[in-house]
Amino acid sequence: MSNYWNVDKIQYIGNKDSKSQLGFQYYNPDEVIGGKKMRDWLRFSVAYWHTFDQRLVDPFGDGTAIRPYDKYKDPMDQALAKVDAAFEFYEKLGVDYLCFHDRDLAPEGATLRETNKNLDKIVDKIVEYQKTTGMKVLWNTANMFTNPRFVAGAATSPYADVFAYSAAQLKHSLEIGKRVGAENYVFWGGREGYESLWNTDMKREQEHAAKFFHMAKDYANEIGFDAQMLLEPKPKEPTTHQYDFDAATTIAFMKEYDLDKDFKLNLEGNHANLAGHTYQHEIRVARSAGLLGSLDANQGDKLIGWDIDEFPSDLYQTTAAMCEVVEEGAIGPRGGLNFDSKPRRSSFEPEDLFYGHIVGMDTFAAGLRVAVKMKEDHVLDDVIKERYSSYDSGIGADIESGKADFKSLEAYAIDKTAEQLRAATHSDHLEQVKDTINHYIVQALK
Amino acid sequence: MSNYWNVDKIQYIGNKDSKSQLGFQYYNPDEVIGGKKMRDWLRFSVAYWHTFDQRLVDPFGDGTAIRPYDKYKDPMDQALAKVDAAFEFYEKLGVDYLCFHDRDLAPEGATLRETNKNLDKIVDKIVEYQKTTGMKVLWNTANMFTNPRFVAGAATSPYADVFAYSAAQLKHSLEIGKRVGAENYVFWGGREGYESLWNTDMKREQEHAAKFFHMAKDYANEIGFDAQMLLEPKPKEPTTHQYDFDAATTIAFMKEYDLDKDFKLNLEGNHANLAGHTYQHEIRVARSAGLLGSLDANQGDKLIGWDIDEFPSDLYQTTAAMCEVVEEGAIGPRGGLNFDSKPRRSSFEPEDLFYGHIVGMDTFAAGLRVAVKMKEDHVLDDVIKERYSSYDSGIGADIESGKADFKSLEAYAIDKTAEQLRAATHSDHLEQVKDTINHYIVQALK
Amino acid sequence: MSNYWNVDKIQYIGNKDSKSQLGFQYYNPDEVIGGKKMRDWLRFSVAYWHTFDQRLVDPFGDGTAIRPYDKYKDPMDQALAKVDAAFEFYEKLGVDYLCFHDRDLAPEGATLRETNKNLDKIVDKIVEYQKTTGMKVLWNTANMFTNPRFVAGAATSPYADVFAYSAAQLKHSLEIGKRVGAENYVFWGGREGYESLWNTDMKREQEHAAKFFHMAKDYANEIGFDAQMLLEPKPKEPTTHQYDFDAATTIAFMKEYDLDKDFKLNLEGNHANLAGHTYQHEIRVARSAGLLGSLDANQGDKLIGWDIDEFPSDLYQTTAAMCEVVEEGAIGPRGGLNFDSKPRRSSFEPEDLFYGHIVGMDTFAAGLRVAVKMKEDHVLDDVIKERYSSYDSGIGADIESGKADFKSLEAYAIDKTAEQLRAATHSDHLEQVKDTINHYIVQALK
Amino acid sequence: MSNYWNVDKIQYIGNKDSKSQLGFQYYNPDEVIGGKKMRDWLRFSVAYWHTFDQRLVDPFGDGTAIRPYDKYKDPMDQALAKVDAAFEFYEKLGVDYLCFHDRDLAPEGATLRETNKNLDKIVDKIVEYQKTTGMKVLWNTANMFTNPRFVAGAATSPYADVFAYSAAQLKHSLEIGKRVGAENYVFWGGREGYESLWNTDMKREQEHAAKFFHMAKDYANEIGFDAQMLLEPKPKEPTTHQYDFDAATTIAFMKEYDLDKDFKLNLEGNHANLAGHTYQHEIRVARSAGLLGSLDANQGDKLIGWDIDEFPSDLYQTTAAMCEVVEEGAIGPRGGLNFDSKPRRSSFEPEDLFYGHIVGMDTFAAGLRVAVKMKEDHVLDDVIKERYSSYDSGIGADIESGKADFKSLEAYAIDKTAEQLRAATHSDHLEQVKDTINHYIVQALK
Repeated sequence: MSNYWNVDKIQYIGNKDSKSQLGFQYYNPDEVIGGKKMRDWLRFSVAYWHTFDQRLVDPFGDGTAIRPYDKYKDPMDQALAKVDAAFEFYEKLGVDYLCFHDRDLAPEGATLRETNKNLDKIVDKIVEYQKTTGMKVLWNTANMFTNPRFVAGAATSPYADVFAYSAAQLKHSLEIGKRVGAENYVFWGGREGYESLWNTDMKREQEHAAKFFHMAKDYANEIGFDAQMLLEPKPKEPTTHQYDFDAATTIAFMKEYDLDKDFKLNLEGNHANLAGHTYQHEIRVARSAGLLGSLDANQGDKLIGWDIDEFPSDLYQTTAAMCEVVEEGAIGPRGGLNFDSKPRRSSFEPEDLFYGHIVGMDTFAAGLRVAVKMKEDHVLDDVIKERYSSYDSGIGADIESGKADFKSLEAYAIDKTAEQLRAATHSDHLEQVKDTINHYIVQALK
Repeated sequence: MSNYWNVDKIQYIGNKDSKSQLGFQYYNPDEVIGGKKMRDWLRFSVAYWHTFDQRLVDPFGDGTAIRPYDKYKDPMDQALAKVDAAFEFYEKLGVDYLCFHDRDLAPEGATLRETNKNLDKIVDKIVEYQKTTGMKVLWNTANMFTNPRFVAGAATSPYADVFAYSAAQLKHSLEIGKRVGAENYVFWGGREGYESLWNTDMKREQEHAAKFFHMAKDYANEIGFDAQMLLEPKPKEPTTHQYDFDAATTIAFMKEYDLDKDFKLNLEGNHANLAGHTYQHEIRVARSAGLLGSLDANQGDKLIGWDIDEFPSDLYQTTAAMCEVVEEGAIGPRGGLNFDSKPRRSSFEPEDLFYGHIVGMDTFAAGLRVAVKMKEDHVLDDVIKERYSSYDSGIGADIESGKADFKSLEAYAIDKTAEQLRAATHSDHLEQVKDTINHYIVQALK
Repeated sequence: MSNYWNVDKIQYIGNKDSKSQLGFQYYNPDEVIGGKKMRDWLRFSVAYWHTFDQRLVDPFGDGTAIRPYDKYKDPMDQALAKVDAAFEFYEKLGVDYLCFHDRDLAPEGATLRETNKNLDKIVDKIVEYQKTTGMKVLWNTANMFTNPRFVAGAATSPYADVFAYSAAQLKHSLEIGKRVGAENYVFWGGREGYESLWNTDMKREQEHAAKFFHMAKDYANEIGFDAQMLLEPKPKEPTTHQYDFDAATTIAFMKEYDLDKDFKLNLEGNHANLAGHTYQHEIRVARSAGLLGSLDANQGDKLIGWDIDEFPSDLYQTTAAMCEVVEEGAIGPRGGLNFDSKPRRSSFEPEDLFYGHIVGMDTFAAGLRVAVKMKEDHVLDDVIKERYSSYDSGIGADIESGKADFKSLEAYAIDKTAEQLRAATHSDHLEQVKDTINHYIVQALK
Repeated sequence: MSNYWNVDKIQYIGNKDSKSQLGFQYYNPDEVIGGKKMRDWLRFSVAYWHTFDQRLVDPFGDGTAIRPYDKYKDPMDQALAKVDAAFEFYEKLGVDYLCFHDRDLAPEGATLRETNKNLDKIVDKIVEYQKTTGMKVLWNTANMFTNPRFVAGAATSPYADVFAYSAAQLKHSLEIGKRVGAENYVFWGGREGYESLWNTDMKREQEHAAKFFHMAKDYANEIGFDAQMLLEPKPKEPTTHQYDFDAATTIAFMKEYDLDKDFKLNLEGNHANLAGHTYQHEIRVARSAGLLGSLDANQGDKLIGWDIDEFPSDLYQTTAAMCEVVEEGAIGPRGGLNFDSKPRRSSFEPEDLFYGHIVGMDTFAAGLRVAVKMKEDHVLDDVIKERYSSYDSGIGADIESGKADFKSLEAYAIDKTAEQLRAATHSDHLEQVKDTINHYIVQALK
């Protein structure tokens, strides 16, 4: 094992103390809670791009990050050293999964053929490490947005050669997915959208995208790569409008183009906020449609209009998300929590990568603890059950069963007084519900 | 004819002068442009609620409106007087269509039976006026959000009695639609959403809504009311989240519940902005799905986070909207432009209602003139045609026809250099496109 | 004592249980913490308008509230009954302060003279209650925004008669303030702003406002009413732009017109969010300028673009606010926490008013407990001290003392290498700080 | 003259045609309008960073720009070539001014001393070109945000060495300003703000900033550099909160630290939007305080939460801005319009730089034409004069002159009826005003 990170293995220490330490206060991986080990509920994954590649740049500033493999100047040497550093990091942090884009791993060559060669060398090394460590790949994906050739999209590019190149790049990425045993495969269409509607044939572009996804699934089937395919919504940034705006928009697209059988959704908190939604909302929408696939774990700042990918630290957000997961029984069929998160540009030292993951893992583990306790006490179940009880019998049951129609309902309602109708509605005591959630947070974590 | 409005009939005067007057500078109803009369392209409609009922209140202030029928104190007397005032207004403004909610017309009684009686009396009078004036109803709708009984929704209320009442109310509203010959029927679900996810069974609520829409269509069929049914998206306000968030979300819902054959969309500019979109975007999304039904004509202020329903005055927005309409050939099968617009609270005199509609009608008429001229000159058509031309032959045509797959595309792309790929993309000269639009606005209107 | 509220006196019960109850889990009024009783740190106040007058309307719906004095139909009878209900509510809730607008208390008459008579009758009753209960008035204010006469402002109205009327109304409001012993006097300029800049002489309007504030202070001095005068910022709503946009903007105005000696700020969480800020930010800005006056206690939803005045339930927001207060030593010279909060429209029963205040008081009390514990442990003090330590000696001390100038600093820096400069900066470990705050919340509340 | 740009000199061609061309349709530099040449009203400036340095990167993509000096690989060679290309560009575009940051011009060296040497070489060449071309510098500025050393600010950095370095860098930048005869000097504090309040001593940081500005002014005086000093507000991005949030906030700061005598404001449209304001609002606020200095010409997209620096193409925005300028008589004492604008990432060819500036210059020139015509016709003057006329005599004049006080105003108002008070207010006919503006746009430009 290499020694890139000057940190001991992160252990569960329990919530003894208030000051943040290099230890978990809530995440105890093998503790059984709600019928499963915490590690199996949460399936944490480290994101290669943010943790190992991200230089902490912003549009007005160069990278501030200090990383232990900065001494390697040759791109391939650095790429190889990063694999060592990454696996040491996973081991020390105690996670079971990783995620990566193809271009995170290795530099591009002069042609795709050469790029693939660079990449395969790194993948070889990852596969070797997997054998000895048991590390699994939650998902892999392809970066089809950074290179200038993707200026107007990849699968939705108006330029057929770019579509062709994207297909070729994706083909290799699926092959890599198979080699590393990725449990899911993610598509984030950062350039699949428009800068301006004045020069965009939206329908033709979306048909191209649908065709691309079908080709991808066909090829995955052909090579026996049976990962769950996932689309990841984001409303905008980099483009003015991205086609996979939010969960509902992406579902409309999937249904229109017959993709809802083979694809599900990968949802992110910060993307939800940029679309005007909460993370909980996006997860609920996906759950209602039976399309929850996996989750990206991060948080935004709702007063900030761009993607900041902050490590999650808000107990309300993780409690809400984990309530959805506990209700669902799991994060999708093979989903996990991938930290699509980076330290602030001002947290530029290597150990900040550990602090970031610790606060993220502990905040989600805490959310899980709260959610399980609320579930065990039937807190929300009772609220919901009572609130909709008028549909469990009588006229409500007739409505749900299809026995009622406008004429029978008119007969039922036409002579009811305003007072009778008001009496049929009830206060939902939302302030009391919010108070209860605050108490559960403290009681479940103390 | 009554004499409520101290204004002469509004005439087309052409753009002779710069100061706003009680006359149209761009809207010349019988002028043929792009192959149709302007009145047939635009199909302007006056909204009963904003124009005749709206008192210009806001959450911090009482109504400021001065209206000519304020002298009538008895609600039914005022309701009857308002019909006279309304038809005089339509005549003087020169519009062909009106729109209304059931509750705009007449006050509620102690029960729905009594409410319906009040309402029928007013509808009788409207039908009489229609015979003599030829005024048509673009659409009617039901107000199922103002009364406290709808506190938690109508069709999505957790309380079955409220669903039943809503069904009964809607039944009568459909019957009215048939009597007045409404060309469309609109559903805006202002309370069909949630205040909080903690106590909401979203899926059950949406199933109830779908059932409600099916019952409505069934009953319309039963009575031979063949209006085009329309759903109207809005993301929030009054509720925290409304199920019909935007066009794409509503399309997902329609597809999930098999409503996309019988329903289309009614889209509004201010609602689009609140959802993070432009009006043009929402129209394009609907068009791409073949679901454009009708348009609400108003504008918002993107720096303001609530629905202000301002009369349209932005030539860019109306140009963009009318470009979509010209491309589509019409505003949906039976659609029109309904002014879901009100004067500012500080424009409280009767004549401001005329100025508001004049600026709105002229701004849309101007947008139509610009759009037709751009279409005649193939401005955007040429841009689009050239931009996507690589799909018209060669590898692009193979992609579209289904001949290509990942393997053939890899063979095509794998040895292309970065330079070759960059050369396949082209600048879209967006700044030049925007400059061209500015010039068309001036040239088409001068 | 009346018996309007079917609720027992709310007691401190400690945090024994998770389900919300009619009892305080964190607010123990006479417990000494950080050197003061909790009641003296927090100085909770009930807002007359939201708690007793608010019908839970919204722009699309009539009021849903059920209130125990609804049976009184005559406005003055109801106004008198409300005073009984209010003082019973204060007693049962256990607060020491109330706040009110003039128009909250009594209906308007045909002239200001008659309005004042109605008002005085109610104030007489309040003063009587104060004698027997010891209830204090945190602040009073004047409603100069609801009546249509204020359509274009009060002190900034373009119509001099409205300015004159506002002055007369304010005069009486100051006299009431003196009678009830109000500790502060608040100005919220909901209509002091503009709908459109096209027709607004901003400078002239702001000069009128400044004149008005000076006249108000002069008159308060004349009658010996020595309340702390406070301006309350809000960026918009109802108007498009309000002059007191946020704390900094209001400070600029106060400085320009020489009002910063006599006036301070009353800050609200929801208003902060609407201006693009956090509550903590607004408090910090006021503190930095020595102008923190008092606080409105509520919360917004950053995904919602209008003022929702929700009862506070977010422990992060109250922790941040109370850290500022603990650092300051108090909420301004005579400030308190006024619940400018209302239940959701769906929480319409009388007891929801108790649940709302309980979650609000407990969330602020919890925030106080966390803040005091963090202060005792020097958590943030240590972070800050170390972070700025380079200014405590050497070149930093020279900069602060004024000894350094551009030439001496150039001599100091001109030959430093990039590495030396980088080494002078340090990671701020923000992820660790956020983790620590999470732990303090649990540890201080368990 | 070099031949980097394959474009002829841009000429005024008048508005003959609708399609955008390489010619001005509204900007006729020597045409006298409103008493001044257009070039003297507008004083257009090209921004070195966006036009010559900007690679069209975004946070998810590498630069797409194709530039004629890309062939030079050595940084100093390229820097020298860029000066040739820049002056050829100015000449062909026909502008009189340029703006630059120090770091736009030349690469950094190992120390500030070496960096200054690189820079001086380029400045020498610029000064030579100025002699032969007459090109003037509207303003220069210092880049104190890109380098990692500024991670936590420059003048507000918690690290004294960074303050010292910033002072040294600024000193040289002022010296350059003097050499090139810059008419203004701008400070944009992109890192002068905070990432988090938890670890920020805001007051101490702002005191450091104030000290820095005073030192800068002192040094400028010492060397006889008499440029107008300008602060440029922006609310956020890159930092979470920037101290110079908007015009009003910056004015508060200037007044607090006695900087309002020597500094004025440089205002930008996109920054205004990010702060929740219009460009017109920011200009008006500065004008009201007598602090309008200069303008950055660009536009944002209010649906997008980050700075996009689009070339201005919105006639409403430029009309509003130019109305303020015409009213003021000039853009500040020595102000101009600097294009802090860049082509979209998809407009990556050299000629797009010309199209971008053409649409920007023409849109501002059009705005000027509309504003002058409205001024000549007294359109807004008449509206304003009438609207505030009640303050020109009687009680209004007494209020303004200081003759009135609360007692005299109470006597005046106390017996007025609600009807009398309503009658004192008037509709502002805003819809008519907006209609008039639309007509002026067409009439003034046709």
